[in-house]
Amino acid sequence: MTRAGRRPGQSQTREHILAAARELFAARGYTGATVRAIAAEAGVNPAMLRHFFGTKQGVFVAAMELPFNPAVLVPEVLNGPPEQAGERLVRLILRLWGDPESRAPFLTLLRSATTNEQASRMMREFMVDSVLDAVAEARGISETRVAALLAQLMGLALLRYVVEVPALAEASDEELVELIAPAVQGYLDG
Amino acid sequence: MTRAGRRPGQSQTREHILAAARELFAARGYTGATVRAIAAEAGVNPAMLRHFFGTKQGVFVAAMELPFNPAVLVPEVLNGPPEQAGERLVRLILRLWGDPESRAPFLTLLRSATTNEQASRMMREFMVDSVLDAVAEARGISETRVAALLAQLMGLALLRYVVEVPALAEASDEELVELIAPAVQGYLDG
Repeated sequence: MTRAGRRPGQSQTREHILAAARELFAARGYTGATVRAIAAEAGVNPAMLRHFFGTKQGVFVAAMELPFNPAVLVPEVLNGPPEQAGERLVRLILRLWGDPESRAPFLTLLRSATTNEQASRMMREFMVDSVLDAVAEARGISETRVAALLAQLMGLALLRYVVEVPALAEASDEELVELIAPAVQGYLDG
Repeated sequence: MTRAGRRPGQSQTREHILAAARELFAARGYTGATVRAIAAEAGVNPAMLRHFFGTKQGVFVAAMELPFNPAVLVPEVLNGPPEQAGERLVRLILRLWGDPESRAPFLTLLRSATTNEQASRMMREFMVDSVLDAVAEARGISETRVAALLAQLMGLALLRYVVEVPALAEASDEELVELIAPAVQGYLDG
């Protein structure tokens, strides 16, 4: 802590919290890094952290610069006609990965996860906590089923936007929705 | 070429060819690196290269130390009862990735593909040439369909063996076959 001497402004405080969060998420994983520990590391009150980011999920999303918050998106996908949830999920992935700017932080996360165990653990715990648990509970299906569905969607993102397999990179969004939504829906229907 | 002066032994020749192949595949991609160019780079006759590795696919498999040759595996999966091809494919992925030793070269390829464009191009062209084209033609389905199927299988490998999502990492092979084979079969049935 080398920032004694003056009272930091809001945006400085925010940055301190995010830096502390990145450090603790990397060191202890998503589950192990508590809101209290992040606040302590940043030298602020936990209430301050909640004021800025709401929940731990919110801190993680901001720290990793994710272009979305699962706490918002998951309910968005789950609400609406259940028989079209598969289609909504495929469209969501195409939207999030289709925009190069929103794709970048995912790519960073994916690269880190294939390269080091700390990042892989962080990604795993965040996925379980923010997506798997929520979807499994809301639909009354097993986490294995939700994970198989995520595997389909992440594989699609990987092959379309990273490896750029032409058959996927050149297909229209509509084609892909038509082709892949039934498999996704199949997992959701249990 | 600094190895003039004596006649290299068989295993030395083999290593020269593989080193030349790795260099050219990285520089020109899988499609751009011809058997002739690799042979020239290694200072051997193309016939010598074919003698050691059969086809370009064979050179690539040896150069990347892949634990399998798609030229052997793809027909293996496609032969046998067509209505069980989805199941055979899921079992194949679980077998190839389940063994840490055979998993290592895939992981290396996946890491490189998420990190640099050359490796990504190499992986893309090899996949198209050795898997996508062959399966699409044999089953009379579109390459997009085969690619969606591969997305499911690669996502499964990624989340089970790299990110290690517990719901997938702890599931038995049988559970995963039962859960995922229907989606894969759906793509194959067109």
